[in-house]
Amino acid sequence: MGIFSKLQDKIKSAVPRSVIRDLSELLSEDQIVLDQSGLKAYETDALTAIKVIPFVVVMPHTTEEVAAIAAISHKYSIPLVPRGAGTSLAGGAIPLSNAIVICLSRMNRILDIDLTNRTATVQAGVTNLAISAAVDRDGFFYAPDPSSQLSCTIAGNIAMNSGGAHCLKYGVTTHNLLGVKMVTAEGEVLDFGGPYYDPAGYDFLSIITGSEGGLGIVTEATVMLRPKPEGARPLLLGFDTHDAAGDCVAAIIAAGHLPVAIEFMDKPAIHSCEKHANAGYPLDVEALLIIEVEGSEEEIDVGIQQILRIASQFNPSHKRVAQTKEEAAAIWLGRKSAFGALGRISEYLCMDGVIPLSKLSHVLAKITEICKSYKFDVANIFHAGDGNLHPLIMYDANRPGEFERVEKCGAEILELCVLAGGCITGEHGVGVEKRELMGLQFDETDLYNQMRIKLIFDPNWDLNPDKVFPLEIAEKFREEEMIKPQGDNQ
Amino acid sequence: MGIFSKLQDKIKSAVPRSVIRDLSELLSEDQIVLDQSGLKAYETDALTAIKVIPFVVVMPHTTEEVAAIAAISHKYSIPLVPRGAGTSLAGGAIPLSNAIVICLSRMNRILDIDLTNRTATVQAGVTNLAISAAVDRDGFFYAPDPSSQLSCTIAGNIAMNSGGAHCLKYGVTTHNLLGVKMVTAEGEVLDFGGPYYDPAGYDFLSIITGSEGGLGIVTEATVMLRPKPEGARPLLLGFDTHDAAGDCVAAIIAAGHLPVAIEFMDKPAIHSCEKHANAGYPLDVEALLIIEVEGSEEEIDVGIQQILRIASQFNPSHKRVAQTKEEAAAIWLGRKSAFGALGRISEYLCMDGVIPLSKLSHVLAKITEICKSYKFDVANIFHAGDGNLHPLIMYDANRPGEFERVEKCGAEILELCVLAGGCITGEHGVGVEKRELMGLQFDETDLYNQMRIKLIFDPNWDLNPDKVFPLEIAEKFREEEMIKPQGDNQ
Repeated sequence: MGIFSKLQDKIKSAVPRSVIRDLSELLSEDQIVLDQSGLKAYETDALTAIKVIPFVVVMPHTTEEVAAIAAISHKYSIPLVPRGAGTSLAGGAIPLSNAIVICLSRMNRILDIDLTNRTATVQAGVTNLAISAAVDRDGFFYAPDPSSQLSCTIAGNIAMNSGGAHCLKYGVTTHNLLGVKMVTAEGEVLDFGGPYYDPAGYDFLSIITGSEGGLGIVTEATVMLRPKPEGARPLLLGFDTHDAAGDCVAAIIAAGHLPVAIEFMDKPAIHSCEKHANAGYPLDVEALLIIEVEGSEEEIDVGIQQILRIASQFNPSHKRVAQTKEEAAAIWLGRKSAFGALGRISEYLCMDGVIPLSKLSHVLAKITEICKSYKFDVANIFHAGDGNLHPLIMYDANRPGEFERVEKCGAEILELCVLAGGCITGEHGVGVEKRELMGLQFDETDLYNQMRIKLIFDPNWDLNPDKVFPLEIAEKFREEEMIKPQGDNQ
Repeated sequence: MGIFSKLQDKIKSAVPRSVIRDLSELLSEDQIVLDQSGLKAYETDALTAIKVIPFVVVMPHTTEEVAAIAAISHKYSIPLVPRGAGTSLAGGAIPLSNAIVICLSRMNRILDIDLTNRTATVQAGVTNLAISAAVDRDGFFYAPDPSSQLSCTIAGNIAMNSGGAHCLKYGVTTHNLLGVKMVTAEGEVLDFGGPYYDPAGYDFLSIITGSEGGLGIVTEATVMLRPKPEGARPLLLGFDTHDAAGDCVAAIIAAGHLPVAIEFMDKPAIHSCEKHANAGYPLDVEALLIIEVEGSEEEIDVGIQQILRIASQFNPSHKRVAQTKEEAAAIWLGRKSAFGALGRISEYLCMDGVIPLSKLSHVLAKITEICKSYKFDVANIFHAGDGNLHPLIMYDANRPGEFERVEKCGAEILELCVLAGGCITGEHGVGVEKRELMGLQFDETDLYNQMRIKLIFDPNWDLNPDKVFPLEIAEKFREEEMIKPQGDNQ
């Protein structure tokens, strides 16, 4: 009995049987998910408020398989939604329409490590942390470190241009990526960049980075490795007001110090993280900074002394330098598990605005005000050093209408960020969550120019459609460009 | 007497008088160059082998003037060639066709410095070094440092995605740029990015960076400032073979060290630079490395000791650590004036290939071979740390046919770089020099995709036309897209 006949019983009536037949000629049985319980695992990502069951999920092992899958989706005009580990907080991996989900998590081989060139070439589904683990003994690491780094994939990082706590010093994904292999919507395999900076011609690599799966399916990446610092030590500073903490961050940066990370937590965040991680966070402060200094023992000592001197102007009520590796690890575990820890208390919507650092105190006060007006509790936890805010707005998911209200509250916060000279997303991407908010930042000319870029690579608008661009404007653009409308898009 | 009537006598017969009339209504007399001797200053840039006198040169002071000039060029379908300081080594600023040259050097105001956000916002014509100078006392600097940094402008740096000796540690322009204001071919003013990492939507900022004036005219830039290191010290290492020097570089990087710069000079380069700068370079070695370590005094000491330990495996015949600031300055003066020093000896064509560092020894040997087969002398001087080669091929400009021969020799070298897994340009750009070589690196699909990007911003193909793309393919693309052919393009 062929694979297709085995699969037939599982086909939902809405799925064209010919699509499954073509897929089954290409892949083995365990690479195709068709049963309802299997599909349910792919109905959402870390934006769990939205759920749509996909047509079918496929699990390619190679670039060639990805290209063939894209050709099939193209042939039948079925939307294709790329997915890594499904950790997107903006709904980037949710199959909004009747889509083929192409899950890259089995493409998890490290293909090449070249220490002389300081590069690692890996398949799309390799996790962020696995790259650093592979070169750890050689004294190197891969710098961007999203909180989900244990599970999130490099292709997901590329799709969202992910950052992390240590990006203050090392930049985000786009600053650490050298090349990709990408499959277009029509199944063509293209290479961009290579094991060097600054390829000739227009910099497509940077356009692909952060394009949220809308331009192609990245199947391989060549990333830059960096020498590991000799050591690193976090320092905790607690303050009685948000303002004092914000001003302290601004003063540290303006004085010419660039610690590898400056993280900010407010009281609600401190309390739930402490419960989770027993990191020894002070519970009686309004704001906590975790500042990490790296280098040799002497450099760390000097750096911490300089920062303490600056901080003293802002009267911190709590100061503690990690004395052991275990203590340092606990401090970071607390921070990195913050989203999970808060998730145990309540459903939340995690915002991801960016602001110029000089506006930090002003914006924090306004966020509190906005959330109060909606009667939502908010926990703030974010990368203060580069002005990337993560207000977590807590809401009751079981109350009808609450998700719509929390979305409105979040939109007000992001508008505030844009008005302060900032941006609606720092590292989580636009996805479905913020597509209607793109208009806060871009006018129609801007959005049209961006959509023209998508057309170059995805002329039929098949790849992760209904993401990133405001629905109405995208629809209008597609009509003007005479692209066939999608079937039953949400 | 109005400006236009004063200018009339100077108008070359080929220039539409109406263009000059429109320009003269917009600008003052000293902002318009029309006389032959004045125009001659703009007939070429640092690729002096090619010379074309422009129609007219205009010198705007503001973004509004730039937008109005673009609108005029658009109205009359006259090519518009943006120019900074004219230091392009690839002919990026040469007006190949009967063009309006828009020279941005008078837009030289620093608009804003924000140390808390670590940003400087400057007009397009501000020189690279002026940015660092403006924040030097505050302990910051702007990292990319092309050899021409005293004169080259930030807009030119953005156009070419410029690098420099210290980019091994700090990245090239694209890694240090946060936002631009840009005028499109039709005179629209657009903003991209802002004072933060990673704007939402597709990353146009990175596409503009390195687009060689083909997508728009950058009028303002917001750049990232970095804290100045406490100090820095260069170390000289001389070797008897290129191989030993190349292997030493590879070993340093693979061992996890990332000095701020690793520069390589071969014997011909050493000798002419020493004559020029009296830097105390050893004259009896085949290859010289300049390695700069930065940080506190202690860090520098430790770093230099570690590098010397690794280097000792490769038997350097010369070792010297700069002991004073003056000594360090002389060492860098020699390196930074290398192109000028060699220019006194002979005309040269400066290539700009990039290779994976692991291929350094192999590629250097091949370059020598290739030049020998053409009977050209070659001097090699380059950023070894990131594999960015600058072979300077010396030739006699007065001998008929020599420029064509040296171009062919250069093309062979760049093909070698691509075959080694590298790229045809590291920091000088494609310009006119390498447009026909783009096919070495990109197939027609790639080039078409790139040209489609240009169409988004420059639908009539007016901005710096005849650059970057192979002429024949660009012509074919333009025909297919039904763009009117240019008047009398070269």
